[in-house]
Amino acid sequence: MKKRNLVCTQCDKAYSIERVHPRCDVCNEPLEVEKVTKGKIKAGNILKQTILDRYGDFFPFLEISRALSLREGFTPLVESSQLAHELGIKRVLFKNESQNPTWSFKDRGTVVGAQHAITMGYKRIGAVSTGNMAVSVAAYGAKAGLQTFILVSAKLPAEKLTPIAVHNPILIQVDGDYGQLYFDSLEISKRHDTYFINSDVPFRVEGSKTISFEICEQMNFSSPDHIIVPTSSGGNIRGILKGFEEFKSCGLIKNVPKIICAQASGCSPIYNAYTRNEELITRVESPHTIAHALENPYPPSGNDVLRKMRRTGGLCVAVSDEEILQAQRELAKRTGIFGQPAATVPLAAVKKLRKEKFFTAKDTIVCIVTGSGLKYMAALEKHSFKIHTCQLENLNEFMEAML
Amino acid sequence: MKKRNLVCTQCDKAYSIERVHPRCDVCNEPLEVEKVTKGKIKAGNILKQTILDRYGDFFPFLEISRALSLREGFTPLVESSQLAHELGIKRVLFKNESQNPTWSFKDRGTVVGAQHAITMGYKRIGAVSTGNMAVSVAAYGAKAGLQTFILVSAKLPAEKLTPIAVHNPILIQVDGDYGQLYFDSLEISKRHDTYFINSDVPFRVEGSKTISFEICEQMNFSSPDHIIVPTSSGGNIRGILKGFEEFKSCGLIKNVPKIICAQASGCSPIYNAYTRNEELITRVESPHTIAHALENPYPPSGNDVLRKMRRTGGLCVAVSDEEILQAQRELAKRTGIFGQPAATVPLAAVKKLRKEKFFTAKDTIVCIVTGSGLKYMAALEKHSFKIHTCQLENLNEFMEAML
Repeated sequence: MKKRNLVCTQCDKAYSIERVHPRCDVCNEPLEVEKVTKGKIKAGNILKQTILDRYGDFFPFLEISRALSLREGFTPLVESSQLAHELGIKRVLFKNESQNPTWSFKDRGTVVGAQHAITMGYKRIGAVSTGNMAVSVAAYGAKAGLQTFILVSAKLPAEKLTPIAVHNPILIQVDGDYGQLYFDSLEISKRHDTYFINSDVPFRVEGSKTISFEICEQMNFSSPDHIIVPTSSGGNIRGILKGFEEFKSCGLIKNVPKIICAQASGCSPIYNAYTRNEELITRVESPHTIAHALENPYPPSGNDVLRKMRRTGGLCVAVSDEEILQAQRELAKRTGIFGQPAATVPLAAVKKLRKEKFFTAKDTIVCIVTGSGLKYMAALEKHSFKIHTCQLENLNEFMEAML
Repeated sequence: MKKRNLVCTQCDKAYSIERVHPRCDVCNEPLEVEKVTKGKIKAGNILKQTILDRYGDFFPFLEISRALSLREGFTPLVESSQLAHELGIKRVLFKNESQNPTWSFKDRGTVVGAQHAITMGYKRIGAVSTGNMAVSVAAYGAKAGLQTFILVSAKLPAEKLTPIAVHNPILIQVDGDYGQLYFDSLEISKRHDTYFINSDVPFRVEGSKTISFEICEQMNFSSPDHIIVPTSSGGNIRGILKGFEEFKSCGLIKNVPKIICAQASGCSPIYNAYTRNEELITRVESPHTIAHALENPYPPSGNDVLRKMRRTGGLCVAVSDEEILQAQRELAKRTGIFGQPAATVPLAAVKKLRKEKFFTAKDTIVCIVTGSGLKYMAALEKHSFKIHTCQLENLNEFMEAML
């Protein structure tokens, strides 16, 4: 393993890269892998590469097991000139993470976490999650042939359990405080030699860097002005920022785009602290939003996201369920991309910030579409759709009238 | 437009490439675009290409509008050494089409059909479909800003309508014979200048060629022995065979793999005719299978698939719902890929054919996983999953017992 350390995101205390516990012993803030300052993209045919092949210089593994990969990443960057025109913005693009193996961005972090687990000799992995991450870890555990523990809340309805269960993990509904379960999983991790690839694990965060690497390639290494990231636990946005910063350090891009942390008003602990000028996030007491994937009342990377937004001149924004649903509809009908509610938060944020004159007509904006609309079909019941009916013998006249 | 004709798949009668009606005036069999015998793959970074860029030599368009693309195709080919070992077969690989923009293979044909429509000056597109194709055409119609007619059966339940409706097409539930609706759509197409990108449209079939092109690249131009394709209307399997044949004509590969047409026993008109040594398919009277996407009782390309299986030494096979569900479970737990029931038909077929000693230990087999398991979640209710429950305070002991 290359000599690269883990460092605390708050106090800079260094730890061995082999450490599995994801947080600092001193300040209990998340650790991260030291920034890469020298590296380049490996040329090759992407049909035959994985993200860990292509961007291998940016990952602290000596050895990569290709058998782990479901060919995550390498997702499209889809431009909508129509939306750009309507919004009066130069360019609006959508990084469509719903084309990942389990149809969300989580797969990037899962493969990196699983790689770290295997490199360290672990035979068991796990996750505490209710949604995208649980499915992703279960799928990669299946592919790798590792014993896989998925711990979910006892309250989770059956329809959220079956897409996890189909991958045959050891799926446990745990009755008790869900927030506490996360901390307990860290203890269990140590005691039972099980590597929990939770949301704030440094190696999961590393996986998210590849979103930025690909955007850089797709935009010919000219950075967009803003990247808008739906934010729940905070791991994805940390990785995306780190990706751009590493590419800049390596001389691959000139500027790091401004990162915008977008939350749902019904659960916006980072936005709340940001607007109140507080240094630490406060637990949201009754989180409630249609964007379930963002419903983390006390995100483990929340304080670090706050620090990073302030350090880099980023921004936090929160949008209502109504705005999210409107954006879901608009994204599907303008771009052809059907995102889960959490994934359409960035478009809702673009519209809100444009109204507030935050963006200018010269801006290029990338929205991260984090997961597929198929993951939460119940959201479609909130829309009202126009569906016509007609008799077959009248179809001709019916269509005539529509033209 | 390049001078390349459409030809009848049965009688070889030639038609202009500008013809929209997909069937022969003489024998009413489907037309296809003349085979390409000279062409090569365009080099380039796939993150910045579309399938129509990379394989442009194989598409009879002078001009490609990149604005149409949602970056369909370029899907993974995932190998399972575990399944290969269990089955006693050299290699088993899965072409995971669930990573397309609307999570099924249909997007490849839709983008090619939409390109033909636009090249021909059409402002309106449409489709007669109940499932994957309806969603795909609605999404691409949205992206292209074309008026889009989706004609579905009046019996379609609401949960199948909403993922189509979210893209804002003109969605019409037509009360009457669904088989007749397909033929009426051909008439309407002419009368209302609407290009219906139905399952047997030559340009939709062209899109499926890219599945083969990618497999060739991913396998370093050494062909697998067998490709197993879930078959409903027959358009996809026609395209896949054509793709390999064109690459062979162009000297890019040495051998065309044997193609296996896999159907569900509850609706297997092609398999039925094949085993009965009949030249023409017979309508299945009461189709019924868990693999809804394969439930076409009278596939428009059925006779041509029969002809092609016989010409090329291919094979037809049918598997039961029980075998399909077992394969769905096995695919998810061995490879991490969660396919819709139709998409797991090939794995069920591999297992069946292996038992019947059709395959040998030296064979390399590629299964086409046509679409995402999220598309038909009700199938999961047919499985029984083991889900544990435990109190948070007992979690430690509980996991201990599991190790």
